Order: sequence, then C-alpha cells, then structure tokens
Amino acid sequence: MITYTFNNAGKMPLYEYLYKCIKDDILSGNLKAGERLPSKRSFAGNLGVSVITIENAYNQLISEGYVYSLPKRGYFVSKISHIANVKSVEPINYEKKLPEKENFVNLSGSQTNPKNFPFSVWTRLIRNTISEKSRELMITSPSAGVYPLRVAIAKHLQSFRGMMVNPEQIVVGAGTEYLYGVLIQLLGRDKVYCVENPGYSKVYRIYKANCVDCRLVDMDSRGIIVGNLRKAGGDIAHISPTHHFPTGITMPVSRRYELLAWTNEKDGRYIIEDDYDSEFRLDGKPIPAMKSIDAGDRVIYINTFSKSLTSTIRMSYMVLPIHLSQRYEEKLSFYSCTVSNFEQYTMASFIDSGYFEKHINRMRLFYSRRRSEVMEMIEKSPLSGKCTIMEANSGLHFLLRLNTKREDREIKNALEKKGMTISALSDYYMDGTSGDEHTFVVSYSDLNPDIFKNALKIIAETIC
Amino acid sequence: MITYTFNNAGKMPLYEYLYKCIKDDILSGNLKAGERLPSKRSFAGNLGVSVITIENAYNQLISEGYVYSLPKRGYFVSKISHIANVKSVEPINYEKKLPEKENFVNLSGSQTNPKNFPFSVWTRLIRNTISEKSRELMITSPSAGVYPLRVAIAKHLQSFRGMMVNPEQIVVGAGTEYLYGVLIQLLGRDKVYCVENPGYSKVYRIYKANCVDCRLVDMDSRGIIVGNLRKAGGDIAHISPTHHFPTGITMPVSRRYELLAWTNEKDGRYIIEDDYDSEFRLDGKPIPAMKSIDAGDRVIYINTFSKSLTSTIRMSYMVLPIHLSQRYEEKLSFYSCTVSNFEQYTMASFIDSGYFEKHINRMRLFYSRRRSEVMEMIEKSPLSGKCTIMEANSGLHFLLRLNTKREDREIKNALEKKGMTISALSDYYMDGTSGDEHTFVVSYSDLNPDIFKNALKIIAETIC
Repeated sequence: MITYTFNNAGKMPLYEYLYKCIKDDILSGNLKAGERLPSKRSFAGNLGVSVITIENAYNQLISEGYVYSLPKRGYFVSKISHIANVKSVEPINYEKKLPEKENFVNLSGSQTNPKNFPFSVWTRLIRNTISEKSRELMITSPSAGVYPLRVAIAKHLQSFRGMMVNPEQIVVGAGTEYLYGVLIQLLGRDKVYCVENPGYSKVYRIYKANCVDCRLVDMDSRGIIVGNLRKAGGDIAHISPTHHFPTGITMPVSRRYELLAWTNEKDGRYIIEDDYDSEFRLDGKPIPAMKSIDAGDRVIYINTFSKSLTSTIRMSYMVLPIHLSQRYEEKLSFYSCTVSNFEQYTMASFIDSGYFEKHINRMRLFYSRRRSEVMEMIEKSPLSGKCTIMEANSGLHFLLRLNTKREDREIKNALEKKGMTISALSDYYMDGTSGDEHTFVVSYSDLNPDIFKNALKIIAETIC
Repeated sequence: MITYTFNNAGKMPLYEYLYKCIKDDILSGNLKAGERLPSKRSFAGNLGVSVITIENAYNQLISEGYVYSLPKRGYFVSKISHIANVKSVEPINYEKKLPEKENFVNLSGSQTNPKNFPFSVWTRLIRNTISEKSRELMITSPSAGVYPLRVAIAKHLQSFRGMMVNPEQIVVGAGTEYLYGVLIQLLGRDKVYCVENPGYSKVYRIYKANCVDCRLVDMDSRGIIVGNLRKAGGDIAHISPTHHFPTGITMPVSRRYELLAWTNEKDGRYIIEDDYDSEFRLDGKPIPAMKSIDAGDRVIYINTFSKSLTSTIRMSYMVLPIHLSQRYEEKLSFYSCTVSNFEQYTMASFIDSGYFEKHINRMRLFYSRRRSEVMEMIEKSPLSGKCTIMEANSGLHFLLRLNTKREDREIKNALEKKGMTISALSDYYMDGTSGDEHTFVVSYSDLNPDIFKNALKIIAETIC
C-alpha cells in the first residue's frame, strides 16, 4: 500500500497535504493510470488519520479528475494523456514600475489638473449615494444605463444644447471609444464609415481595429466636403461639427443642412455627431448641435464627461434616433452596461443638484483666463512675431503656425530631444497627404504657466 | 433697415435676443440669402443698443454660419440650401419610469443582496483613495489598467489560484463582455470561435453580434468534447472548465490536458478560460485553473468581480499569454481603459488590504449556509421525493430535476403566470437540440428564504 508521512505538512490541513502527495505521484508517474488506490478505511488505518481526511482528499482528486471511483470497486488513477512540463516561471517582480515621463513638457496632454476636479463635492455625493441607494446600487443596470442618469442627461441636453430627447434614446457607456464599437454592431459591419481628414485619428483606428470599411474624406474651411463623402460611397459620416479636432473649424449651418440632406437621400445613412468639447466654447453662446435641427432623425449624438469633468471617470453617452433606440433595445440590450452603478448614480446626482453646470461655468472661466494668459505669454515671448495663433475661440487647444522653413518632423524631433512633446497639424492627416504646414496643436487644459513660458523659449530657439 | 424691439427679451442678454431674432428671420425667409445686414454702427444707433451688442450677435451668427462677412463690404445672409421643418417634438415626460417586476420571484437572478456588499469598507476606501491619490486619479490610466491594480490582481491570483503571472499580462476592462470584444480584435475576426453547448448563451450572442464565425460544440459529462472541437474546425475554445454554467460540470484534469494538447497542434489556437465563479467552490479546496498548467502559454484566463463582489461595479480582467500581451500593447493599447480610475484604485486597495479575501471567505460561508438551508427547505417541502438536486457543490446555483411529464416550456409558462421566473437547462442549448430534460437552474445568491419556501409549494403544485 502507498504510504505518506505528514512530517512536512506544516500548517496545511492533513487532507490537503495528502491530496497533494497523491497528485504529485500521479503527475510524476509513480502512480500509474488504472492503478487502484487503497480503500478509505484501510488507508486511514495505515496512515493514522481519520476516514474523513482520506475521503476529503479523494473527493478533491476526483473533482479535479486525477482519480475516478467505480461503485463497489473503489478508487482508481485516471489516465492523463499529456503531462505538460509546466515551464519554470521567472521570479515575478511585482514592484517594477512603468516608466514615467515626469520631466516632459507635454503640449498635447488633455488631463484634468487635480486642482480643477471637484473632489470634495464628488466625495460627498458618492457617500450620499452609497448611504441612500444601497438597494439600487445592487440592482443590475439596464443595458443603456440607469434611468435617473438618463433623465439627468436628457434635461441637461435640453437646457444646455437645446435638444429635446427622451431618456429612452440615451445609451450610457464606458467612454466614446466603447460606444463607437456598439454603433458598429448597431448600424452594421457592411456600411461604409467616413471620417474627417485631418481628424482625431483614434476614431479611424477604432474602425480599422474592428475591420469595417472606413474611408477618409477631405475637409475644406467649412468642414467635411459633402461631394467627397458622396464620392467615397459613405453611409455613415463621423464628424465633429461644433468644434473639429484639431483644426477648430465650426461647421456653418449651410453645410449642416447640406449634410442632413445627404442623409435623407438614401436609407441607412447616418451622421455621428461627436460633440466632445462643446461645453468649452469660450466666446458667445454655444453652437446648437446638429441633432437639434435633425428633422429626419438621422443624427446620432455622442458626448462625454472626459473634457467637461475628467477623462479618468469613464463615462460617455449617445442619443440615438428613436428607430435606432428601438433597434438597440431589440438587438443589443443583452449587453450589460459598462459603467458602474456607483458612478452612474453619483453622476446623476452631480447633474441634478446643479454641480455639473456650476463646474462647467467655473471651468469655462478658468480656461478662458488661462487662454488669455497663454496668449499674453506668447506675445511677450521670443516667439512673438514669429508665429500666428489660429482657432483659439473654442475648446481647450489652439493652432500655432510657426514662421519657419524647418520640416514639421524635424521640429518635433528637436523638441522631443529637449524634453517636449507636441503634435503637428500634419500628424492628423491619416493618409499622410499633408505637406509641412508648420502648424502645431497646443493643448492648454493642464499647462503650468512657468513651464509653458520656458517651452516658448525652447520653441523659438528651435525654429530658426 | 430691419428693426427689432427688445420688449420680449425678458432676462435674455440683448445680444442673444438680437441673434435669435435675426436667425429666425433668416430661417423663415424674411431675410434672403445674399441680403446685406446693416452696419454695426448704424444698426446700434437704430436699435438704441451698444455696438458691442450688435457685434456679439453678428459674431454668433457668423460662427453658426447664418451670416458671413466680406472685408470692407459688410455682413451678408448665407445661402442655406435646405431648411428642414424640425418635427414637432412630443412633450417629454421625464418622470416616466421603467416597469418594475417587484412581485416576481426570480429563481434565475444573480444580484448581490445589499446586505452582503461591504458598503462601509468600500465607502472608507473610496474616501481614502480620493484624499490620498488626487494626482493619480487624474492621470490617464494605461489601456490595460492602472499598475497597482494589476499588481494586486497578480498577487491575488498567485495566492488564490496558484497562478504565477506578471502584472503586464493583465488587462482590466468594464466587464467580461467588453473583454470578449477586445479578444476578437486581438485574436482576429478570421478565427473560428467555439463555445460550449449547452452554455452561457450571452457568450454566443456576443460573438454573433460581432459577426465572427462562432460554432457550438457539444459537451459530455467531462466538458467540451475535443473531437467535436476538431470537427468544428475551431481555433478558439471558449470554456468554463472550473465550473461550467449551467450544468455545474468540473472538467477533469485528463480532459484539460487533452485540450491543451489540442492548442499545441496548430498555431493560433487558444483556450479562453472563463473562471467566473471559481471563488465559490463550497466543498474542498479550489480547483486549479487551466492557466496554471498551461505550459504552451495558450490559455487566456478571464475572471470578474461580478460574482465575488457585485456585478454592478463593472470590473473584470484577463490574463494574456506573454506573446499576446505584447500584441495587445502594439495593436490595441491605443484604446482607453474602460474602468474609472476611482474604482480601479479603490479595488486595488480593497485587495491589497486583505478585505477582498475576507469578503470571499465570509461569502463562501454565507452561501454554504444558504445552500444547506435551501436543501433543507426542499427536503421539507411538498417537492420532497419529486425532484433530484444535482451539481450543488459549487457556485451559486444548482440543478433541480423535477419528476414530471409536463414539458419544460409548459412548466415555465405556468410558473410565469404565478409570478415566478425560472430557467430550464434546455434553454441553454443554443441550437435548440435539447429535448425536455425536466431540469431547472436555481440561483440562490439572492434568494429570500420565505419567498423560496412559497416558490417550492407553487412548483410542486405546477408539476403534477
């Protein structure tokens, strides 16, 4: 009879130690397939442990498949066809850190400065949510998001964007990138998706990563060119009419109507209106959304809290045309909502209690002042007279055209060596058609004034 | 010269009121395309307002495209090709509520009872996270999740599942459903994905919604049949070897090695090991994960906090083979992480400070007691002797075979009319091949004992 001592068992329960010994013997081949194991009673007597200990060990071996039992005949070693040599694992260094680029001046960053996030309000609202809504927090959210949040968003869109939408048309998701993936499933993989060129390259990459037919359509000074959209055979136009990234173009109303007319020419055509930073139009009142003049119900409106609050709470939403929200309900509502209930309810109360509006107003003032500072700093810097500022009346970035003959790539590399990251407008031409425009995209949402001052000096030195 | 009175301006700023009046006249056709607007100075004099007011109104009209300006010539009405009649919007009733099924007895629910969620610990940890990590909370998370959380998960997997994995192999996402979509992009749309039949139908639906080739592979009492997987031409086998849903089968180690051998026969074959409720093996010690014996590095391990904490915090993770984690980094790390930093850091500290382990132990005890209660209740109910309980030693559900000749569908419909929702095992055969097995799936994670007692009575009345 096989036998084991329990000297090395340490603090392990006896049954577990015995299970391990037998398993090791099976894996090493000491116990062969088909071999009969001792009966529980005799094994227990032999090892000087209780029958229960043997039984527990055998049961564990059975449930993992190392051993099988035959009624009235006993316990046998299973046939294990292929014993892999588990590779020797390298010692794992959990303390390894990802490299940080602390010393870099990032002129293309879009993070929220911790000073600008309403931490104390947010903490209070989470605490209230948890203490008042423990029941709701545990109830599975509808696929499109919890109803109170969708109501809060609908009301916000009404007062802020002049949009009359039903909460039922709203789908909440963990970021616009996630929602793009949902839209591909909703609209169909057989459609031709068109994006603006130049444009926000991530949108293009997402369509490509999902292997749908995605085509680039050129822009003029009024936005995407409808004739080219037609030539490209587009079904879906994915655009940012309020404030195009990175050019800053606002699409005039005539082009908007031209686009809406294009959607009505043929069934299955839609506009995806990405309204990512409409809250931060710094002059005048906000530009109305295309969705608000969308008589044919062909516009899918998408927005996010990334710019208006922080990109690190992953929450975005889309407003679907009524017929598409019904299709979503039928075809895709089996998906779980991707945003935590805790944050959905907290956000609902953040909007409902007026904090969101206050926060936007505060931030608009902050960014407006920051922009003036930045402009003044450029004026007083060695760059003054050697550059032109464009499209600075909206959003959290502007275009800086430099008087230089050096190539964009050359300038970027030279700045990179001096510890500075900046994007060129030409980077956003996804087909690489652009020549050097000597124009750079400067994001100022999280820009330290002292660092920026120094950055301007370095840029001035670099361009000549 | 056009003229307006400001009598109806109310509290609106004058420039905005003026903007609105002019816009309405353009849209109604009172002002024609190409028509020249008054100069700022004369218009201001005429209306008795400041030049600034006119200028602001004109600028707004220009930025929205209703008006254009020609240098030294003045302001003109734009040509707007298509004036849509914006549909009359039905009054929106924000107070409308989604229907609730309050009176229903749901025997297939899997929600966490609010009493079982560690609210006070969670609240404290969120508060600490916010007060100690305000900087980190605003820094964009790496695509695969913040590093401290991935370290915490790697350590947890080591102590809990005997898995030695690098934090770099871990990808955190907003739910396993989201991660399945990522895997399709990572492994390729040209692959044949195989799922277990019967099985968790959502997995099948997700592959179908993504339009990839997904095939059903039959199971025997030891899990998915490798011969059938081969016949189906599968590249990827998506399985739950630790605890299959809904049958409760644990795949024995011989079948596991057979499957691993299958992956090594041909490049590009992988196993997706869905380990969704491995924490709740109620007897014996946990079954080792396939990933822990995966010498060829062909197993993608997926788990979630849905069962172990709550499904309403949307957080899951996968452990990729090393070569796939490199491919993820190259091809897909442009995606933003879908989980909020706030919850990522809170979860990291929940795991690191030992609360997660405590919670699992507490819940395992709770569910174990609940199971005994449930078994005892069945024993004492009118169903006693008219049913068999199967696969009750793991997870949060068991199978209940009823001694009845009535069809599964008939029973389900009859129970539905009496206010009870229950799933039949036959519902999980996705090709509809199953006959009536008279077997039902009972989830008991959130089952009120009194209600369950009553439910048993109703079932007993229904089956005869």
